[in-house]
Amino acid sequence: MRKVSVIGVGLTKFGEHWEKSFRELAVEAGARALADARLEGGKIQALFGASMSSGRLVGQEHVGALLVDQLGLTPIPAIRCEAACASGGVAMRAAWFAVASGAYDIVAVGGIEKMTDVSTEDVATALGGAGDQEWELFNGATFPSIYALMARRHMHDYGTTEEQMASVAVKNHANAAKNPYAQYQKEITLEQALKAPLVSSPLKLFDCSPITDGAAVAILAAHEVANIYCEQPIEIAASAQASDTLALASRASLTEMRATKIAAKEAFKQAGLEPKNIDLAEVHDCFTIGEIMAIEDLGFFEKGQGGPATEAGRTALGAEISVNTSGGLKGKGHPVGATGIAQICEIVAQLRGQAGARQLHGAEVGLTHNVGGSGGTAVVHILKKT
Amino acid sequence: MRKVSVIGVGLTKFGEHWEKSFRELAVEAGARALADARLEGGKIQALFGASMSSGRLVGQEHVGALLVDQLGLTPIPAIRCEAACASGGVAMRAAWFAVASGAYDIVAVGGIEKMTDVSTEDVATALGGAGDQEWELFNGATFPSIYALMARRHMHDYGTTEEQMASVAVKNHANAAKNPYAQYQKEITLEQALKAPLVSSPLKLFDCSPITDGAAVAILAAHEVANIYCEQPIEIAASAQASDTLALASRASLTEMRATKIAAKEAFKQAGLEPKNIDLAEVHDCFTIGEIMAIEDLGFFEKGQGGPATEAGRTALGAEISVNTSGGLKGKGHPVGATGIAQICEIVAQLRGQAGARQLHGAEVGLTHNVGGSGGTAVVHILKKT
Repeated sequence: MRKVSVIGVGLTKFGEHWEKSFRELAVEAGARALADARLEGGKIQALFGASMSSGRLVGQEHVGALLVDQLGLTPIPAIRCEAACASGGVAMRAAWFAVASGAYDIVAVGGIEKMTDVSTEDVATALGGAGDQEWELFNGATFPSIYALMARRHMHDYGTTEEQMASVAVKNHANAAKNPYAQYQKEITLEQALKAPLVSSPLKLFDCSPITDGAAVAILAAHEVANIYCEQPIEIAASAQASDTLALASRASLTEMRATKIAAKEAFKQAGLEPKNIDLAEVHDCFTIGEIMAIEDLGFFEKGQGGPATEAGRTALGAEISVNTSGGLKGKGHPVGATGIAQICEIVAQLRGQAGARQLHGAEVGLTHNVGGSGGTAVVHILKKT
Repeated sequence: MRKVSVIGVGLTKFGEHWEKSFRELAVEAGARALADARLEGGKIQALFGASMSSGRLVGQEHVGALLVDQLGLTPIPAIRCEAACASGGVAMRAAWFAVASGAYDIVAVGGIEKMTDVSTEDVATALGGAGDQEWELFNGATFPSIYALMARRHMHDYGTTEEQMASVAVKNHANAAKNPYAQYQKEITLEQALKAPLVSSPLKLFDCSPITDGAAVAILAAHEVANIYCEQPIEIAASAQASDTLALASRASLTEMRATKIAAKEAFKQAGLEPKNIDLAEVHDCFTIGEIMAIEDLGFFEKGQGGPATEAGRTALGAEISVNTSGGLKGKGHPVGATGIAQICEIVAQLRGQAGARQLHGAEVGLTHNVGGSGGTAVVHILKKT
């Protein structure tokens, strides 16, 4: 299999886009990615789209063909990839397969979600489709309550505190404040986070990622052609994925994600690297407890040490490992289908030295971690400077 | 890229499954495919699911992880692929890439749709998401009306008649009557088809495929390991796909599908074959005019000759080319996400000589043609005996 690099990235601002449609957001991100790669659209040979619930949220399925149509790329093949909130991650992986196999030299991978066109209740129900519809959602278990169960057990088993979870939100808002694409470009205090309204005990408002509109696109190229178009191609050193049961109740543990652990192990093996080699990581903090579990399951900290490490500032920008320099799902926003690609965009920007006020100096290797549902799917990519 | 073969197939009966859920249908088809391949589930290394609109029809997204979970295949990677009614076709292609690339030796690809759990109006609206939601569905254009426009123009340009369209339905019902998995196992007469209630002029009831529940699964293996598990592996000689504009109004022609023509050309090139080499074809007859356009665009008949050829019996079982021996979408049923995989199942059954009462004698090479929307996506696979 051939080496594959990212040669261009493009994002819309994440937020509430009342004035833009699903397709307009996709075109905006796609045009930026093409411009970034200094590429004409005609060079793109296939498109891999990602959207979790476009059918329920905007009435549109057949998203791959829509994107190709709207970006003026017909007649190239297009597909929509879906794995709930890990849709971007699995699309990235499908695109990587297609180039690594030798079938295509240059492809586009784009994620999008337009979530504000329906009511908050409808969004919560649609997102519930990421879990087990028959065993969880039908019985009233929406995602805040599912992650709340994981948080309670993590607190019970490891002594994780509400302050430690709140410190994830404080850090990610601090990073988002430096990111012009982020939904919330403002810092919050630990006190604000702890006094915020309860969503599902112990999770409060700032423990939860928001409802967001947004799109993100990356252009991938076979390593041997990447240098033709791009001065700073970023190599995909690993692409790994694993699954677990959809329902939380079927799992052996509530305090770790088996899919994350298996995908991470495989990714580190592919890349020939260890957790200590990672300079920065975009991890799936749909809820603050999600980031705490992620940095443990990815091997950055011992089990149970994710909370204390975050509280001690060991995951802040420029610290031991910089986690969610973009602001993460919490601060940057979480347009579910776009999230996995937006994580790639952030790592690419950082490794190129184009991350502006949030630039991490000397970044060489970055990791992305994208979760579907409560851990039914986990996708890990490792990117590095070439 | 490596050669890939189909080593096992499994279907549920297609129809109205009031007593079975989405996941039960998937498990039934999956278990049959594994038994057919004489394979333990533990040998499957990745799963590619297909469903068009599970979110709207049963409230469940994250279908790849659900299937892996329900089939007891965790922690292997899983993804859902979507391209409207061509979801099965694009999933087949994604699975083929994954094996052809060398990443996996054995993978499963499964399509499913459960359409009868919501009202007919809700199904029509969900299916409308296969077209351009903003330009077509929002303005009231559901799929029967879109295909009716194509039929009217085909009648105007080529003299195609209502009798010729009805003869597609008569042929496909005759084939379905011999298929125990078909939704409608009964023959109809030309008179019945012509006198049936109007759906969208000129399309009448028997010009339209039905609302169907069903699942279909295929197991793919690298050619070099296929013989270990299977006495009769069927080689995937070509896998090709193309896109067109989502909205019919944006196209240069209403009487042909450009995506079909491009995908077919590429598929014949990959396989080193011509249309005359194809013994049987499963084509996308969501409406009878769809089959007429397909057999023209695939190169089996000259443009405008699809109707007369069908009326003259040239596409009947055992004739010049046997089209939709399974009964097609019209007779076998059309659970949209499953259709593309079910087409593969039929070709495999025929090439193995296991098609029972509808067996085509001496079949060596078969083709599948799966369309998304009104031609926004077309996928063509060619399979042959090894």
